[in-house]
This record gives sequence, structure tokens and C-alpha cells, in this order.
Amino acid sequence: MKDGSDVVKDTMVLENISIILNETQLPENIGFTARAMANMGMTRLVLVKPKNCDLSRVRKTATGMSVDIVEQMEVSDDLRAALKPFQYIVGTTARLGNHRLAMADPRLLASELIPISKNNKVGILFGPEDCGLSNEQLRFCHKIVTINTSFFSSLNLSHAVMVICYELFMNSHEPSKISLPRLANSFELEGMYDHLQEVLMTIGFINPQNPEHWMNNIRRFLSRVSLRAREVKIIRGICRQIDWYIGQIEKTRE
Amino acid sequence: MKDGSDVVKDTMVLENISIILNETQLPENIGFTARAMANMGMTRLVLVKPKNCDLSRVRKTATGMSVDIVEQMEVSDDLRAALKPFQYIVGTTARLGNHRLAMADPRLLASELIPISKNNKVGILFGPEDCGLSNEQLRFCHKIVTINTSFFSSLNLSHAVMVICYELFMNSHEPSKISLPRLANSFELEGMYDHLQEVLMTIGFINPQNPEHWMNNIRRFLSRVSLRAREVKIIRGICRQIDWYIGQIEKTRE
Repeated sequence: MKDGSDVVKDTMVLENISIILNETQLPENIGFTARAMANMGMTRLVLVKPKNCDLSRVRKTATGMSVDIVEQMEVSDDLRAALKPFQYIVGTTARLGNHRLAMADPRLLASELIPISKNNKVGILFGPEDCGLSNEQLRFCHKIVTINTSFFSSLNLSHAVMVICYELFMNSHEPSKISLPRLANSFELEGMYDHLQEVLMTIGFINPQNPEHWMNNIRRFLSRVSLRAREVKIIRGICRQIDWYIGQIEKTRE
Repeated sequence: MKDGSDVVKDTMVLENISIILNETQLPENIGFTARAMANMGMTRLVLVKPKNCDLSRVRKTATGMSVDIVEQMEVSDDLRAALKPFQYIVGTTARLGNHRLAMADPRLLASELIPISKNNKVGILFGPEDCGLSNEQLRFCHKIVTINTSFFSSLNLSHAVMVICYELFMNSHEPSKISLPRLANSFELEGMYDHLQEVLMTIGFINPQNPEHWMNNIRRFLSRVSLRAREVKIIRGICRQIDWYIGQIEKTRE
């Protein structure tokens, strides 16, 4: 069904996309996730603060070639640090809350991610089994994806990973698409948001008692734009300029 | 995201499609299968000769609303008997063997099955975890489906169920399609094949030492046609007529 060149193509297309499991509770789900990834040609797994990472239990469900994924997976104890290398972060959620980030179903997501992934590192973030990602964690994400379900919306973690990876794999076989330029990574973005918040508090645009409210509005707007590294530099340049200008005013007052 | 009428539509569309697990080894996989089905709006589960059906282990993975599916599942000790009520049977396999039945990927399958399921009972058959369906079991099927994979083709059983149910659920939301008339069920079909084999051996068309070879060719041809109940009756009518004619000839010889 498939010749060698196709296999190489899969790996090249999907090697920039990582699965990131945040605070996973059951080692078996980590193993099943690795297996689903191996089935669908994905190789990079990142664990953030796993509640239990007993490797003997992980390996029970990570059969066959998924063993390699388990051996090479990264483990991090801080979500923000783990997300730094990624230019595009997708959050998964079953909850249809009132956050207004751009939402997509897995098929639409895959069609958008494959072109982005050609020049960018993409991370797909899954929350813990019992409660999923918090609104605070979803704030790191450029896009939210929800798997359509019937009455019962709670998917097993590895089943959710399988559906997303399956759609990515299916899409990676479609005729080639234009690729998107390198986007800002999470390190650049979060530094920018910190800087923005500081400046906006300094100038009294946002209330220091509740800075999150306005910052969320700004994040929602900017995450839809998919900022490039160059654009983040421009925004930080403006922030620095405001800092400098305020400094000058204060000097003249003295 | 979804109003009441949509939910009713899902259930009505998918209620004619059953998941049939043949000789499943691990009770946890039965539970995970029920959960994946509940997520995707499917309700009917049939177990055939489960190797271990410890309900306490099944229930550990069949969380939430999938408990209802476990409580209502049917258990059978004979595959052929379990398949009797179904007019259209799909076999799942990872093996790309030399059987030449019509093959499909899950997306194509879903687009074909939804119209068939409006007037027909459809069964999707999954083999045991270690070896899948045998060629003999695949012979009962009108269609074979294979999930596209990368290097590592061995999916966890419940992951395979999830991908198939997900595609069916996605397709059931698409604009309504024409429905197909009632097809012959497995009881009618297998009775017809037995009758055909008997007659074809009687008239010396097939070698009694190796009847399977020719019967497989006939099955391959007829399963592509998706025979209706009326057509099965016609074929059996022809068989009976041949029997009668031979009887007449033998009488005149006496």
C-alpha cells in the first residue's frame, strides 16, 4: 500500500509536532498515548509533571515500536518552561466554556496545522484525566480543539490523542500545501505578554488588582493573529519605548 | 454546540450499527470499547466468545454513560449465529493479505455505511488483540476496512474501535443521503452459500476435496453486489430448481 518515499514523507511532515501530556495521572495512559503516536507516525512526546510515571506500567501499554517514543520522551516539571520551544500551541478541551479563543474540530485543526508545522514546532497539549486543562493553561494556546462527541463527552486520554494523531496523519498524506513562515515561540510570546502587562500596569491601563481580565482580552486577540518572531520584537520595542518615555517624564519632574 | 434534535438524529442514524468483538482477550479493552462507543453515539455491543469477560475489570474502563452499553451488551458463543441478524458486515484488519474483498479506509467506509444503515442492520467485526480476524472469519464480511497507519501498524483494539466510531459519528452529521433498501442478512446469505456449495458440488462444478477455493471466488463477487433479500431468494430458487431437475434426470435413469 505504501512505498519507502511515502514513509519518509510522513516522518518529515509530522516530526515538528509534539504531544504534550500535562499532569497525567495514569502511567497506562502514557503508554497508550505513545502507542497511538507510533501508529500515526508521530515521535515526540513531552510529559509535564506526570503524577505517576512508573515506567514498568508505562511499558505495559507502550507495545512494539512505541517503546522508542517512551525511551526518548522528555519530562519537565514546569509547563511554561516545557512550552518554550514551540511556535504554535494547541490546547485540547472537552469543555465548551466561555473562553473565546479560536476553536476547531480535529479535522479542521489538522488541515491548518500541517502547513504551519513545516517551518514551526507545534505542541498539542492534553490536560489530566480528571479535569482537563485549566483556563490558565489554555491561555498559553494559540488554538483550542474539541473532539465532537455524542451525549457522553469524556474521552479516555489516549483515545483523544488517537483521534488528533489520526487526523494529522490522514492530512499529512494530502497534496502538499503552502508552508507558513516561522512564528514566535512560547518563550518569546510569554516574555512579550509579561512585558506588556508590566507596561500597561505602569501606565494605568489595567488594574493591578485584576490584571488577568485585560491581559486575557489581549491574548485572545493576539493568539488569533499567530504572531511571527519579528512582530513580537516590534511589540516589545514599543513597550521599551513607553518605559523610556515614562522615565524621561519622571526625570523632568524631579 | 448541539441542540436536542441533533442528539436524536445521531442516535437514530447510528442505532442500526453494532460493534462486534470476536474472542477479545482483555476485559479492559471491552470497557474501553464501550466508552469509545458512548463518546461517539453508538449503543450496541456484541461479544462473541470473549476469552475473559470479568465484569469488574470491564467496568473499570467503561466509565460514565458507557456503563449502559455494558449492561445491555449481548454475549454469544458462536460467531456465525451472532452475525445472523446483520444485513451488512464489515471486517477490520491490519493485515494487507491477498484477500481481494472490497477494501476501504474508515472515512470512505463511513460514507458508504451511513446510507446502508438507514434500512439495514450493520455489524462491524473486530478480531482478538493478538492475531485479528482469520481469513475464514473475514469471509462473512461484505467489506474489509483497514486503518491507515505509519510504520507501526498494530493498534490497540479500543483505539481501532474509536477511529471507526469517530468516522461514523462525523459522517452521521453530514447532510442526509439517499438510503439503501434492506439487504439480505447473514442468516439468509450463509444459507444461500451453503445451498450453492451443495448444488455446485452435486453438478461437479467444484471439487469436493477443496470446495473453499471456488466458493471464495463466488463470495468475493457476490459480496461486492450487496445482495438484497429478494435476490437471495432468487438465487436459492435457482439452486432448488437445479436440485429438482437433477432429481428428474435421475428418476428417468432408474
